[in-house]
Amino acid sequence: MLKRFGVSLNEDLLSKFDNMLEEEGYTNRSEAIRDLIRDALVKKDWLNDSIEIVGAVVMVYSHHQYKLAQKVTQTQHQSYKNVLSSLHVHLDSDNCLEVIVLKGKAKDIRQFGEKIISTKGVKYGRFIGATTGSTI
Amino acid sequence: MLKRFGVSLNEDLLSKFDNMLEEEGYTNRSEAIRDLIRDALVKKDWLNDSIEIVGAVVMVYSHHQYKLAQKVTQTQHQSYKNVLSSLHVHLDSDNCLEVIVLKGKAKDIRQFGEKIISTKGVKYGRFIGATTGSTI
Amino acid sequence: MLKRFGVSLNEDLLSKFDNMLEEEGYTNRSEAIRDLIRDALVKKDWLNDSIEIVGAVVMVYSHHQYKLAQKVTQTQHQSYKNVLSSLHVHLDSDNCLEVIVLKGKAKDIRQFGEKIISTKGVKYGRFIGATTGSTI
Amino acid sequence: MLKRFGVSLNEDLLSKFDNMLEEEGYTNRSEAIRDLIRDALVKKDWLNDSIEIVGAVVMVYSHHQYKLAQKVTQTQHQSYKNVLSSLHVHLDSDNCLEVIVLKGKAKDIRQFGEKIISTKGVKYGRFIGATTGSTI
Repeated sequence: MLKRFGVSLNEDLLSKFDNMLEEEGYTNRSEAIRDLIRDALVKKDWLNDSIEIVGAVVMVYSHHQYKLAQKVTQTQHQSYKNVLSSLHVHLDSDNCLEVIVLKGKAKDIRQFGEKIISTKGVKYGRFIGATTGSTI
Repeated sequence: MLKRFGVSLNEDLLSKFDNMLEEEGYTNRSEAIRDLIRDALVKKDWLNDSIEIVGAVVMVYSHHQYKLAQKVTQTQHQSYKNVLSSLHVHLDSDNCLEVIVLKGKAKDIRQFGEKIISTKGVKYGRFIGATTGSTI
Repeated sequence: MLKRFGVSLNEDLLSKFDNMLEEEGYTNRSEAIRDLIRDALVKKDWLNDSIEIVGAVVMVYSHHQYKLAQKVTQTQHQSYKNVLSSLHVHLDSDNCLEVIVLKGKAKDIRQFGEKIISTKGVKYGRFIGATTGSTI
Repeated sequence: MLKRFGVSLNEDLLSKFDNMLEEEGYTNRSEAIRDLIRDALVKKDWLNDSIEIVGAVVMVYSHHQYKLAQKVTQTQHQSYKNVLSSLHVHLDSDNCLEVIVLKGKAKDIRQFGEKIISTKGVKYGRFIGATTGSTI
């Protein structure tokens, strides 16, 4: 069920907010405010170790790196319960980007992310916290 | 060609570093230090608007949301030169997660990310800066 | 002048938002939403190199470190136009924390922050983007 | 006691790293690498709720805001054990910036930061994790 409430805002601040929304492509304020609220809630979810959450690892590596692809695949299979899916992009003749989508307790999937990123030969890796969508 | 140089470190700090590496799964210090260096370089790349870079959008939305999937697909096709690939995960009966991998100038792909995230019905979105791998 | 507008939100999301506000100490929704909006605007300000902005450096160092305090003071005086004020805290018998508040173009004060943080002997340093308050 | 160890790095990556160090004002690689290591350790400290840590709140508000300054001072006094010191800067005829340096368990001082930032009338606030210096 939709609920409606009023927000009061200084005229000047509102006009700056509207400009920003236009720049970013928002077509109404409610949608933008919902997004700000959901972002804040997801940040909190990441400090709560008792709920299930979704995260992703973005990593870049050279496929020439000896046995790296196998090791990364192996690590994923060892934690197959936490790995939902992965995407592989061929960036150039050397470099690959891989995105691995994870689901589980914050602590577990963060640790999985660290393990992947620390694999010898991974040039760049970042762990990103997202959400299952069910808490927002 | 590999080069080698020495790093001097307080004994206590080194032992804390070694503990952290063990926890995260690193098997040698050089690899961990290379990762720290690459992270710092990629951060700098993101402040440089003249180079090509790779980023990703992670977004969560309900597939029941009217026409959202079409809009997101349409936005991707309009910027097809910047979109390398995408991955779709079915999180539950309502929620989908989509990862879109982008390549281009920092400013352009960040703007594309904002456009996607601001689409009505997208519950959660994050733009992540990564790298082509060729500058690190 | 205050303006008022309505926001519509799913009941469930609203109740989660209200819980978060209570936890964080907010007493009304408008105030919380204004804060979310201002945060978003300040983030944008930091990508705009043409406006004046306020930032801070937080650094930790040992006062036993030879000549470090003098060097840090000297660096501040060289950029005195960008340095508004600083705060020094004695953390323990060895460690000091110093906060330096800066004002200027984003690029300039970020560079100043890097210079301070890179000074030999500074154990920890972070640059934080804030705001003059006049754009929000 | 100082320990020394070797790091091996691709020639190209090393030259990029050296360029970055020069830009940021570092005069030797060991110092820069120590800083990267300490940053990584402090990030880990912030996930550990059993140790004491130092943080700071940077906030901007209008001193015309009714009773705000008193409320902020009052909140600080209620948590005086966690508040080490504070700095006040007059940004313009309306706006003030205040930095409050905190010490305690991560969870407690983060919560204190939220309480301050959520005070009605605070325009902008950020909580920053730093370190006591004794764990790095």
